[in-house]
Amino acid sequence: TPAPFNRAPAPDSVTTGPIVGSRKVYAAPAAHPNIRVPFREIALSDPKEPPVRVYDPSGPYTEADARIDLRRGLPAIREGWIAGRGFDVVAGRALRPEDNGNLPDDRIAEACPAHRTLRAARDGRMATQYEFARAGIVTEEMVYVAHRENLAREGAHAEAAARLADGDSFGAALPDFVTPEFVRSEIARGRAIIPANINHPEVEPMAIGRNFLVKVNANIGNSAVTSGAAEEVEKLVWAIRWGADTVMDLSTGRNIHNIRSWIIRNSPVPIGTVPIYQALEKVGGDPVKLDWEVFKDTLIEQAEQGVDYFTIHAGVRLAHVPLTARRVTGIVSRGGSMMARWCLAHHRESFLYERFDEICAIMRRYDVSFSLGDGLRPGSIADANDASQFAELETLGELTKVAWAGGCQVMIEGPGHVPLHKIKVNMDKQLAECGEAPFYTLGPLTTDIAPGYDHITSGIGAAMIGWFGTAMLCYVTPKEHLGLPDRDDVKTGVITYRIAAHAADLAKGHPAARVRDDALSRARFDFRWEDQFNLALDPDTARRFHDETMPKDAHKVA
Amino acid sequence: TPAPFNRAPAPDSVTTGPIVGSRKVYAAPAAHPNIRVPFREIALSDPKEPPVRVYDPSGPYTEADARIDLRRGLPAIREGWIAGRGFDVVAGRALRPEDNGNLPDDRIAEACPAHRTLRAARDGRMATQYEFARAGIVTEEMVYVAHRENLAREGAHAEAAARLADGDSFGAALPDFVTPEFVRSEIARGRAIIPANINHPEVEPMAIGRNFLVKVNANIGNSAVTSGAAEEVEKLVWAIRWGADTVMDLSTGRNIHNIRSWIIRNSPVPIGTVPIYQALEKVGGDPVKLDWEVFKDTLIEQAEQGVDYFTIHAGVRLAHVPLTARRVTGIVSRGGSMMARWCLAHHRESFLYERFDEICAIMRRYDVSFSLGDGLRPGSIADANDASQFAELETLGELTKVAWAGGCQVMIEGPGHVPLHKIKVNMDKQLAECGEAPFYTLGPLTTDIAPGYDHITSGIGAAMIGWFGTAMLCYVTPKEHLGLPDRDDVKTGVITYRIAAHAADLAKGHPAARVRDDALSRARFDFRWEDQFNLALDPDTARRFHDETMPKDAHKVA
Repeated sequence: TPAPFNRAPAPDSVTTGPIVGSRKVYAAPAAHPNIRVPFREIALSDPKEPPVRVYDPSGPYTEADARIDLRRGLPAIREGWIAGRGFDVVAGRALRPEDNGNLPDDRIAEACPAHRTLRAARDGRMATQYEFARAGIVTEEMVYVAHRENLAREGAHAEAAARLADGDSFGAALPDFVTPEFVRSEIARGRAIIPANINHPEVEPMAIGRNFLVKVNANIGNSAVTSGAAEEVEKLVWAIRWGADTVMDLSTGRNIHNIRSWIIRNSPVPIGTVPIYQALEKVGGDPVKLDWEVFKDTLIEQAEQGVDYFTIHAGVRLAHVPLTARRVTGIVSRGGSMMARWCLAHHRESFLYERFDEICAIMRRYDVSFSLGDGLRPGSIADANDASQFAELETLGELTKVAWAGGCQVMIEGPGHVPLHKIKVNMDKQLAECGEAPFYTLGPLTTDIAPGYDHITSGIGAAMIGWFGTAMLCYVTPKEHLGLPDRDDVKTGVITYRIAAHAADLAKGHPAARVRDDALSRARFDFRWEDQFNLALDPDTARRFHDETMPKDAHKVA
Repeated sequence: TPAPFNRAPAPDSVTTGPIVGSRKVYAAPAAHPNIRVPFREIALSDPKEPPVRVYDPSGPYTEADARIDLRRGLPAIREGWIAGRGFDVVAGRALRPEDNGNLPDDRIAEACPAHRTLRAARDGRMATQYEFARAGIVTEEMVYVAHRENLAREGAHAEAAARLADGDSFGAALPDFVTPEFVRSEIARGRAIIPANINHPEVEPMAIGRNFLVKVNANIGNSAVTSGAAEEVEKLVWAIRWGADTVMDLSTGRNIHNIRSWIIRNSPVPIGTVPIYQALEKVGGDPVKLDWEVFKDTLIEQAEQGVDYFTIHAGVRLAHVPLTARRVTGIVSRGGSMMARWCLAHHRESFLYERFDEICAIMRRYDVSFSLGDGLRPGSIADANDASQFAELETLGELTKVAWAGGCQVMIEGPGHVPLHKIKVNMDKQLAECGEAPFYTLGPLTTDIAPGYDHITSGIGAAMIGWFGTAMLCYVTPKEHLGLPDRDDVKTGVITYRIAAHAADLAKGHPAARVRDDALSRARFDFRWEDQFNLALDPDTARRFHDETMPKDAHKVA
């Protein structure tokens, strides 16, 4: 029996203010003074040490004097850029009762009242970053991303060539300095994406691709009975505070549409969803009742709201399902198991696969990026790299080319549970099958025996696959397999994955990655404790651990 | 100003009882009914699922009805085996005031009153496992280790050949079944050691070698002002409870001799020390005052107490020290910096290097194994794999052969801070330089930017280097670089390193490693929650995380 359901309060406040020991700065490339790109700057106590500038996805929430009004949403920094591209202004789809779970009016949570102009591509005109890139056009988003990836430098680091030569990137092509033209060319080749729905003008553009810094995704999402918009917006803000580059909203409960409105209007990072989760709610929870119409309607609903990327499990084909029969853990992806159930019940090819062209047409209109879902990812070490997993990956490669032909940006989701020695073949096969489209993996978890510590079992795999070429790592929290993550779990998951991503950047020879390690190591060698804390991924924990165990007079001899 | 010093109480109790959901069992190989080898057995709720037997270093403390008397020490299970080998019974070195820091009598902590026969090798007779192995003799310790590594099986797993073929061990030679003769041959080739001082009859023999399960070391040790024997014995028992295979006592404070007596008499795992730490105490803390006599005296003192392996930093040669001059973090090994300081102050070659033959002769008499210290290990990503580190490693290779010629067992310590792409060359070079002697690494930490999370930065590196061939992984706790680990930190460090070691075993294709993963994954797939918890490395945390977040009626649908 579910707990009594009450109308959840609208969000009114979230965590704000700088991370201790640093300040938010905005910097513009010399040629584009109006493109203000955010960074976090850590000043050091030794006058010989320059401040260290780090990548910062946390949005305006970490400004020193953050003025946040959740009801108005974040500043629409892309509005002018988007308005200049000649999109249609549209009325949009009317809200339907099923969008919020068919709740009676007095139990529907309030939607975010922020108003934004709703747009869609004009027929015959370009809409996506992929299309602009292919046409040789450098968008403002590409300029923004280049400056961001360079950490606001105007030229290459003196040591960039040496760093690149010292690294091992397995055939990636990291430049010594990222130009807007380099960003364009990576997107045009399909090797990178900028997930940025034209109806999410608040997003601070970021790139996902093997030749950029490795990114981290965090998942949030309400469950049927436990949380509302206020909790979810706080989870978002908390996750990006510690370094999540994108956030997936995996909500499944009531009020899903209205909760999403608060998340998107207040998110400076791209928001991803799994539209089939909401489609399932609309058909009463029975996957057999899914059909193209309800799915299509959900895609449009979410695209108009501003979701930046959709996980679409179009690679789960009817013929793949029997390949999972002898698995230890069957199909563990929720979307994958829904589609497998549908295919078997109807004994038909997946409607996602059959209608893939139409899906592309819808997503292109709003520049929603594909995250082609790995519905057959292994759920255990025993099932890693099996026939069903790789059959689906081959289908995802086929669909990647269809999506590109349809003008869309694409990334590919990957496993899952994989032992150390079977990780690299996942990367190599993905690059080969999917034409170097960005890989976006969950972990992988390198053993099954440590529930409660799966941020670590998977952080190991994430560091390795990031080094091998994965562009974005989907975090796993300590609660994986056990329950819903709380605030501490979210932070632990994000920090663990920032470690994995950074270890990968270092190993690839990223020209700027070692700057922070070296600054922290010098601080350590000099016993500049405050600098060491402030340069840490988590200054609060580093400081607390030190203060709680070191006698005051032993500070200098540890 | 140090805190007021009071005579610390003698230990009187420690954590006992089984890990939840399992029971201690002892099993003997068919041919040796008196060699009782410990395991932990996890019974499962599904009658079709056989109980899972796991490796168990926790000693008698986890028996259901553990009767522990710390004043008497653990049962001397090796006493009969040792007594049969014809050692001299000796009076031993007399206790000296400096052994316990020159404390007045009323402030010396009580020594463990347990009495053991003190032995040393008889002139011209074999003493070490290495010497017995070279002579073709299979010792009881070798029989014990074989049964232990097989998890009490009497023959190979049905799937052993398939598992080995599925793995990738980089040239290791894991057998499908471990025989006593295999153990002997690995020890004779120098590829494995059984650290087991003839004066530590309480030890439950275990092997460290690339062709055995990957092992984990935990460090304990008092500091000058904060803890006594009671705390240290509890740390030992707590660390082995969660899976530490050996424990290093890095104590540096007063009462060091007497605290060590409690640790060794109550330890079922091999105990390692860094004798130069105590030698430094004896010369008042000034490394320049160290000399061969005080060091030699300390070696004999600790060998007679029963220490199983000594870290000896004999690879820090005078000529290596200038190679560290341009490092970011200099020399971070405490023993390494002491010897570097000594060499520079006297402008002389290291007395450890010059007297290495004599050191071998002392250690051989008691079968104390070498852990050749990496005094020049890198303390930052910037310093990884530099000239000084590798020069020392080459010297350690030279000393390995000297130690073998002297009849001693040897393992080699390794770094430290190393980015992902520079880990494998450490392993490859160590195997080549040191004739496949077991490698024993600290981490390595794969980035410097996460103080507070260095169990994770290093767990990533540990899993990888374990896969590549490292035989034992020295744990790192969350407090690394920040302070002294508490009880929770010790547990977190051990569990993290058990994950790394197990991930490595899986990847190497160890014939038995996947049994536990598969059993847990089947339990997960069947929603057998209790089985899932009990099979976990940390059942308590898995159960707590589940119970605190899952509504009771949602148990079956997570």
